Amino acid sequence: MNRKILLNCDMGESYGAWRMGDDEHAMPLVDQANLACGFHAGDPLIMLRGVALAQRHGVSIGAHPSYPDLQGFGRRHLACSPEEVTALVLYQLGALDAFCRAAGTQVAYVKPHGALYNDLVRDDALFDAVLAACAGYRSGLPLMTLALADNSRERRLADAAGVPLLFEAFADRAYLADGQLAPRRLAGAVHHDAERILQQAVAIARGEPFADIDGKPLQLQADSLCVHGDNAESLAVLRRLRAHLDAA
Amino acid sequence: MNRKILLNCDMGESYGAWRMGDDEHAMPLVDQANLACGFHAGDPLIMLRGVALAQRHGVSIGAHPSYPDLQGFGRRHLACSPEEVTALVLYQLGALDAFCRAAGTQVAYVKPHGALYNDLVRDDALFDAVLAACAGYRSGLPLMTLALADNSRERRLADAAGVPLLFEAFADRAYLADGQLAPRRLAGAVHHDAERILQQAVAIARGEPFADIDGKPLQLQADSLCVHGDNAESLAVLRRLRAHLDAA
Amino acid sequence: MNRKILLNCDMGESYGAWRMGDDEHAMPLVDQANLACGFHAGDPLIMLRGVALAQRHGVSIGAHPSYPDLQGFGRRHLACSPEEVTALVLYQLGALDAFCRAAGTQVAYVKPHGALYNDLVRDDALFDAVLAACAGYRSGLPLMTLALADNSRERRLADAAGVPLLFEAFADRAYLADGQLAPRRLAGAVHHDAERILQQAVAIARGEPFADIDGKPLQLQADSLCVHGDNAESLAVLRRLRAHLDAA
Amino acid sequence: MNRKILLNCDMGESYGAWRMGDDEHAMPLVDQANLACGFHAGDPLIMLRGVALAQRHGVSIGAHPSYPDLQGFGRRHLACSPEEVTALVLYQLGALDAFCRAAGTQVAYVKPHGALYNDLVRDDALFDAVLAACAGYRSGLPLMTLALADNSRERRLADAAGVPLLFEAFADRAYLADGQLAPRRLAGAVHHDAERILQQAVAIARGEPFADIDGKPLQLQADSLCVHGDNAESLAVLRRLRAHLDAA
Repeated sequence: MNRKILLNCDMGESYGAWRMGDDEHAMPLVDQANLACGFHAGDPLIMLRGVALAQRHGVSIGAHPSYPDLQGFGRRHLACSPEEVTALVLYQLGALDAFCRAAGTQVAYVKPHGALYNDLVRDDALFDAVLAACAGYRSGLPLMTLALADNSRERRLADAAGVPLLFEAFADRAYLADGQLAPRRLAGAVHHDAERILQQAVAIARGEPFADIDGKPLQLQADSLCVHGDNAESLAVLRRLRAHLDAA
Repeated sequence: MNRKILLNCDMGESYGAWRMGDDEHAMPLVDQANLACGFHAGDPLIMLRGVALAQRHGVSIGAHPSYPDLQGFGRRHLACSPEEVTALVLYQLGALDAFCRAAGTQVAYVKPHGALYNDLVRDDALFDAVLAACAGYRSGLPLMTLALADNSRERRLADAAGVPLLFEAFADRAYLADGQLAPRRLAGAVHHDAERILQQAVAIARGEPFADIDGKPLQLQADSLCVHGDNAESLAVLRRLRAHLDAA
Repeated sequence: MNRKILLNCDMGESYGAWRMGDDEHAMPLVDQANLACGFHAGDPLIMLRGVALAQRHGVSIGAHPSYPDLQGFGRRHLACSPEEVTALVLYQLGALDAFCRAAGTQVAYVKPHGALYNDLVRDDALFDAVLAACAGYRSGLPLMTLALADNSRERRLADAAGVPLLFEAFADRAYLADGQLAPRRLAGAVHHDAERILQQAVAIARGEPFADIDGKPLQLQADSLCVHGDNAESLAVLRRLRAHLDAA
Repeated sequence: MNRKILLNCDMGESYGAWRMGDDEHAMPLVDQANLACGFHAGDPLIMLRGVALAQRHGVSIGAHPSYPDLQGFGRRHLACSPEEVTALVLYQLGALDAFCRAAGTQVAYVKPHGALYNDLVRDDALFDAVLAACAGYRSGLPLMTLALADNSRERRLADAAGVPLLFEAFADRAYLADGQLAPRRLAGAVHHDAERILQQAVAIARGEPFADIDGKPLQLQADSLCVHGDNAESLAVLRRLRAHLDAA
């Protein structure tokens, strides 16, 4: 492995009296925490505490903005105009950054959540709208997006907006040939075997090819692996992955 | 008049398809726009446009945070803990500041809205909670609060937190002897006569005494007058007031 | 005109401190009030008052349910499953009916709002989901939907669910050849001339052909005309329309 | 024990992707399910499923309305007018009853939640407002409220409104001398010992005196015991309590 690949994790997804995830145990194991910003999860108090927890463990903080949809946890597409998307990303980004400032740090990157994340893959106008929010908020603020076999579209749009990109990949998901995630409805779309997950993680970390869902070799250039730490099982895999990458 | 008194106005209080106020006509007449931050009014698009309008007219932008209560327009007391209040003010303050940054400016002060504004008068812990949000967000960020006959309590709390205060007064409201606003249920609590409003404005601007609700002299030290510009009548008074103060 | 065509109007679309429409003046002129149910507009107090106003004028009350989207006024498509749609229609229908019961009446029909209304035209599963809500709530409760040149699809689905249909048409909108409303982006999509509106209203009321957007004859079978009464201009047209139909 | 005391439990308090409680395991053990109605918990889909689960186990369904406060889970006092309270109770009651109707049953009673429940103890106007909602919705629909040493105030208000009352008591809470629940901040306010809970339950079921927080005898007339079933420990106590009461 030439360079260190980072581990990012969606966190701060509790809301009011409802708990989600196990941030206390996952935080020490990751490098980047994608914190919900109130539109799909994460009320102000949850955000304040999530930022404090990340700070305590020296974890970089990313804004995880969403369509406004608590009920649907941001997983339902909502037909927003590009101007609405720029506005809702700016809003959530600034809101989270307020807690970062108060804690002596700042938002390090933006990673859209759920349906918004998925919509960016297909819709240049929405991708531009999110880039406009990043560039408008702070020069050099990166956007995290999906590593594909070919990210020339994303690089072209981001270059035009002057926004750096961070690419993330998944060790526990099967891929289509073009580097899109295999839809969850397909058999084998999610890896449950820890060895398989570790193998794919190491291959991605080294920039080496690994098997896509059809067994054909796929190579991705990724800066970060998206991991999960919301239950005992995923935490166990995460611990092994952390140890594996640290040892490498 | 020794120094120029400023005019501040609650703005950006539309939401989605609903319009409130006449910001287009009022903005050119004021110095400070208190912009709603999404909790009592002001969705992200309204905020983006409100900031642009203020910028166009060289108007200073204040965050106008509220309890989370769209239905009650932030006018209903909600029993929040101090930690919750710090968090909800930080959240809204950062959200508005994101639009300011994207427009090349920054939030210039914080003025709590509605029930939250009123609760600060009585509750030191909540006052401290708002001060903590201001101080945590940016060193030197001022809090706007009500000018009273005696503001020693507010000065003491703000000094301890290292937060500058801006004091606002009202030209169209009658006052109790201690400088609290006369409750609206009292006869004569709101001035409707333009001459009376102008007189009180000029007295406040000059730091001279004016008649409280019982006719006794009251003197206030204020940095800004809170004005209204949401209909033809209030805009007419506002235009005269602006001309009056500019001529002084 | 063989039978009386009714006039229906979207109402109760205020929310908290925000006013929309002029229900006080429009209510006496219509037969059916489609009342918002809290998801795109209409908080509980607005609903309580809207029902009382309709009752006072002997106007029939329809539930006007929406996707949950106050910020977008229910005009933005939200990707909901059919089960979610059944649930959100039942919820809003029951909520409005509570005010009807307390006022001694009951919801007389259901007319989906905005994006949900539009989505029903294209999506049989969503249409079925709304029918399931109507049938589940009360046997015989009708669904109001768009009168087309050919409504056999809607009749087939509704018959299978045992739900009566009410068809509505528009006097102030231009139509495509199949009876769909001409998209608003097309020139001439909305009629502004009062005479033209009255003519189209009378033709629809009589079941006679009128000119579609290309000037070709179109014939619709409608039970009700959707009218507007939110400003002085639309109220003026509505008054003439009411007088015209009453005289016929 | 002369008559059977019932067991009621707050349920349906999940929301969207967030789970709360263990309704699947608790439902078979209780007689009355207080289902959240969307204002503090319980989105439409959760309500639809909660009603189905209750129906499957022959459990009576109560509406559990709240102040509108998802973030605070309805536990924060919100200063609403009596008219607002009547409207928000009617709204939630009707919404839940829609799912009941679709499932072939109806809401059997109303039990306010959290801060609203607590506010009724002190505020006659709010108590009247909730009674008005019950009476307006359906003649004979009961309101569930706290059994006190002396419930003459509640009986007087309810009689005037023509609303039957159901009184609930708590087996796992310590009581003040007047039958108010001992505030949670007091030592010994919550019983954790299963034997103690069972003893208090049996005493209440028999209408016999039990020790208040000062060890003095307190006698309550209750129709129902409020129980919890959200974790393994509380379910274990609930199972013993159910067996105990069924054997009695």
